[in-house]
Amino acid sequence: MSDLPSARALPRGFRFAAASAGLKKRGHTGSLDVALIVSDTPASAAAVFTQNLVQAPPVILSRAHVHASPDAMRAVIVNSGNANCSVGPGGMAASRATAEHVAKILGCRVKQVVVCSTGVIGVPLPVERILKAAPGLAAALEFSPSAFDGLTRAIMTTDTRPKRASANCSIGGQTVRIAGCAKGAGMIHPNMATMLSFVVTDAAVAPNILDRALREVVGRTFNCITVDGDSSTNDTLLVLANGASGARKITRANGGDYTKFVAALENVCHVLAIGIVADGEGATHVVEIEVRGAPSDRAAKQVAQTIAGSSLVKTAIAGADPNWGRILAAAGRAGVPFNPDHAEIWLGGMKMYGPPKGETHSLALPLDERAAHRRLLEKNVPIIVDLHHGRGTARVWTCDFTQEYVHINASYRT
Amino acid sequence: MSDLPSARALPRGFRFAAASAGLKKRGHTGSLDVALIVSDTPASAAAVFTQNLVQAPPVILSRAHVHASPDAMRAVIVNSGNANCSVGPGGMAASRATAEHVAKILGCRVKQVVVCSTGVIGVPLPVERILKAAPGLAAALEFSPSAFDGLTRAIMTTDTRPKRASANCSIGGQTVRIAGCAKGAGMIHPNMATMLSFVVTDAAVAPNILDRALREVVGRTFNCITVDGDSSTNDTLLVLANGASGARKITRANGGDYTKFVAALENVCHVLAIGIVADGEGATHVVEIEVRGAPSDRAAKQVAQTIAGSSLVKTAIAGADPNWGRILAAAGRAGVPFNPDHAEIWLGGMKMYGPPKGETHSLALPLDERAAHRRLLEKNVPIIVDLHHGRGTARVWTCDFTQEYVHINASYRT
Repeated sequence: MSDLPSARALPRGFRFAAASAGLKKRGHTGSLDVALIVSDTPASAAAVFTQNLVQAPPVILSRAHVHASPDAMRAVIVNSGNANCSVGPGGMAASRATAEHVAKILGCRVKQVVVCSTGVIGVPLPVERILKAAPGLAAALEFSPSAFDGLTRAIMTTDTRPKRASANCSIGGQTVRIAGCAKGAGMIHPNMATMLSFVVTDAAVAPNILDRALREVVGRTFNCITVDGDSSTNDTLLVLANGASGARKITRANGGDYTKFVAALENVCHVLAIGIVADGEGATHVVEIEVRGAPSDRAAKQVAQTIAGSSLVKTAIAGADPNWGRILAAAGRAGVPFNPDHAEIWLGGMKMYGPPKGETHSLALPLDERAAHRRLLEKNVPIIVDLHHGRGTARVWTCDFTQEYVHINASYRT
Repeated sequence: MSDLPSARALPRGFRFAAASAGLKKRGHTGSLDVALIVSDTPASAAAVFTQNLVQAPPVILSRAHVHASPDAMRAVIVNSGNANCSVGPGGMAASRATAEHVAKILGCRVKQVVVCSTGVIGVPLPVERILKAAPGLAAALEFSPSAFDGLTRAIMTTDTRPKRASANCSIGGQTVRIAGCAKGAGMIHPNMATMLSFVVTDAAVAPNILDRALREVVGRTFNCITVDGDSSTNDTLLVLANGASGARKITRANGGDYTKFVAALENVCHVLAIGIVADGEGATHVVEIEVRGAPSDRAAKQVAQTIAGSSLVKTAIAGADPNWGRILAAAGRAGVPFNPDHAEIWLGGMKMYGPPKGETHSLALPLDERAAHRRLLEKNVPIIVDLHHGRGTARVWTCDFTQEYVHINASYRT
């Protein structure tokens, strides 16, 4: 699913390029650290950004640009290795200079350019390296899987592998393609934590409808994942829709065209979001947490996210330890009312806590510890909690919490 | 400070005993796993318990007993190795049987006995082992530092060392002694997370005044620490005041006697709380986080706790990495308004973020990375964040987040 899209699957009318500008220490993720996405024609744009109070200049600038040109976006310039955040007024000057430079090279307006940065906070961005690399990037632009591959690698920081996904659907008999990529392996939490994701489609979608579709999909995908509860200063998820498929334009947030487009967009975003969790820093397991029987969907999500954020649950999964008591304890501190004596818990598909047959009071059910341990060694670990206190449901995803996470983050800058 | 109190410092009129009942796997914390505290005369009692929705039977029972006999508590029976939580109706039956058995042996009423358990959740408590050990415990009761030492060790689970503290003050010319112990190294978070703490004093204090003093002190000590954000099902902090010092009774929540008593109680609770953090699972640093210039004290505490709960901040400290950007990013997601462009951050006593001389916009200040790294290798790491957005202040304490924490918690039951 996360494989590189073929040329057939790549949305028409987009070109990509990546290069090494010397912003990133050469590591296992290679030295690519700047990339350019260009739509040959003005594209509809929709984006969601970090909710953190501390917002990097590229976020502030790009939000303004998407707001100013939601129907005419042309390009995205992105760098890794430096977040251009908390560096004083020079930060905004650097992001502006980058947008201006790219606009000049491409012959478009500054507000048609989105600027993204990811990497270390508080170190001035050596913007001259990006400016210097820009003409080469523009010259190298290409519609090809390998160019798209370069983009997906140039945005990586602590990621161990590129995350990408594609899907298509038929709008009025015409095939519409969607392809996307994402980076982000730590500082991942609902509300767009350190995460960059770019999705391009050759569907024709009115900007307000694209925005609506994006927000709907994000609520069920990117905003349902957490790696470590930290949220970042630079998160950006951007969708560009340039209409190059020739399919008829989607102008209403209902009806078959919209539904099909949203389903395909959700497919792409789901794969990218799960890809981020699976590549969470040090992660060895993907944990899907489903909460049922909550007073409301919102309450269910609150419980699910509290479980997903529990260091004790996440370390137990790392150790393949069927310690369902930590799941119950995490649910109990989520601030949602329920009666623990009636709750039920399944871990790895095995029911571990609930009322024994013919009884009403939940307790630890007989468990084959060895079988449970073996089951929890598998990559995907589902957790289901039924609160029996209403009809609300939610699903969120996280990864386990390993010594490698600590190793990565204790030595990030050294 | 955390040393064993001498016989001189031990509050009069209390006796202690500890034994091995076979509840705990023999480990580095020894095999002591049951203990008894007895006040020779009925004592005033005040307690705070976990706020988790999932509450273990010993918590429910002990809350009722303290409520029923706030002026006549006689004994505390405590076990480690098993939390007696989420095991069905048998859990409450086990706690009741324990209290009844101890009351019978001591010749007091059942409601004069507090019962505490800590350890694994969801495994039925082999209560018969506690019942069997009880007569021997009662026979071994002793007023001595070594008996107190046994108590402090019998309550340990993943703790690497016992936590204890003592203080005294003079009430009406008479010396009053306070001694306490605590256990808890993981699942520590505000609102009484997996933590047991027992404080005894020979002061004479009216129950309602003791309750008031305890709540005041807890707000500045135990409820200002966090190890991993998880809160537990069994937390209990109990204070017993038996008046055996002969000092005049404290009956008002103001005036010199109350103030002196609260100061001494806070001294003991502060040392115990910091002791818990310093012995946090895998911890190598104690981190004191002070937030200034917040809209309110409450907002300051919210920011401080968000920083204290950040895995990225805590792993950076583990790596002695002066990564103040993570502190700023954590503050930014705390839900408290401030302008990051005017905020200031000190880490390890070094100012790392703020407006350079003569400027108004905060940015990364020149830093000797080697010196900063060396400073952060020290045991105690202070963090100060000034939001410049009001007059609210708060201080909280946490520990760093190491690979050892993950190691401990991935293999807790195996």
